[in-house]
Amino acid sequence: MEFSSKLIEKAVNEIAQLPGIGKRSALRLVLHLLKQPKEQTTFLSQALTQMRENIQYCTNCHNISDSLVCEICSNTNRDHQVVCVVEDIRDVMAIENTGQYRGIYHVLGGKISPIDGVGPSQLKITTLLEKVKQNQVSEIIFALSATMEGDTTNFYIYKQIAHSNVQISTIARGIAVGDELEYADEVTLGRSILQRVPFEKSFKNN
Amino acid sequence: MEFSSKLIEKAVNEIAQLPGIGKRSALRLVLHLLKQPKEQTTFLSQALTQMRENIQYCTNCHNISDSLVCEICSNTNRDHQVVCVVEDIRDVMAIENTGQYRGIYHVLGGKISPIDGVGPSQLKITTLLEKVKQNQVSEIIFALSATMEGDTTNFYIYKQIAHSNVQISTIARGIAVGDELEYADEVTLGRSILQRVPFEKSFKNN
Repeated sequence: MEFSSKLIEKAVNEIAQLPGIGKRSALRLVLHLLKQPKEQTTFLSQALTQMRENIQYCTNCHNISDSLVCEICSNTNRDHQVVCVVEDIRDVMAIENTGQYRGIYHVLGGKISPIDGVGPSQLKITTLLEKVKQNQVSEIIFALSATMEGDTTNFYIYKQIAHSNVQISTIARGIAVGDELEYADEVTLGRSILQRVPFEKSFKNN
Repeated sequence: MEFSSKLIEKAVNEIAQLPGIGKRSALRLVLHLLKQPKEQTTFLSQALTQMRENIQYCTNCHNISDSLVCEICSNTNRDHQVVCVVEDIRDVMAIENTGQYRGIYHVLGGKISPIDGVGPSQLKITTLLEKVKQNQVSEIIFALSATMEGDTTNFYIYKQIAHSNVQISTIARGIAVGDELEYADEVTLGRSILQRVPFEKSFKNN
């Protein structure tokens, strides 16, 4: 792609480094910004820089936060004995949206994935193990993606805390609400039969 | 969507104002930037601000440029009598990529579209008409999208220069190279028959 302006070229190249945005889409975004008032670009740049410069992580759960301890961890109404292990902030937001969980979180910052060069040392696993050691936790709930990497990460952590008397659970795998049985994959359907729940329990939280 | 950090929220809201990017995608981009070195965000912000602040438009053809007159307009090897009317810089790039055109351009900056609130006065039509009046042009080639808006814009300009002795043409509509006839729409196929070209001409430029 040849550009008539070095400024455009630079902006397009920077935007195109973001995941899922190619050079054509980047150029479309740049041309959009050019049609908008200058302030929009200024606000966008400022928001990005400020976010990147000033962002903090909760010292307790490693969730993204504006203070040293995040709102969830500093909320005394929540059960600090129950820790839900998740991959990143998006999962925290998703679980919070359900309104069903009253414990706290532990954000790993990813999952073990040798293909992407992510090993256990790059994740916030040590601090989780320490919490268990210091008897701060009564239950750990694994809420990672139901993928090979998620399962590997679950198992890696499980092996290191299995000897402690912490209760370890994982979120239920099964048929999603609204799904039709015939389209469910075999593994999911098989698990949902093996891990069936008493009928009275199935509508308890609705 | 509730965010655990105001900084994240602000960045997501700014990014989500761009066309084709929703809040979820914006959050994905923000989390990506957080995982990358700080410099990437700095470079991105700087490139955007500099682009928006310092961008110039060619005084002759209104194409985006780093100088007062763009490279194409200042190229004396090109035919300044032939003007190709296009919508925006992307069309200039697309036509330049073909390597088949040796004239100059006139970038309208959009097309007449009452639904989007774009009328003739918002487009760079007056300067085009002036070029025609001052006899600087021998041929005008319409190269706008083959849509209702494109055709409206073509016709609007045509009506105002039809009385002059400028030659007016439009890029050929027809079956795209590589396309199969059975999948072509009727209007395109119909036009391609009515506007058939001598066979010798059809492989002249290959």
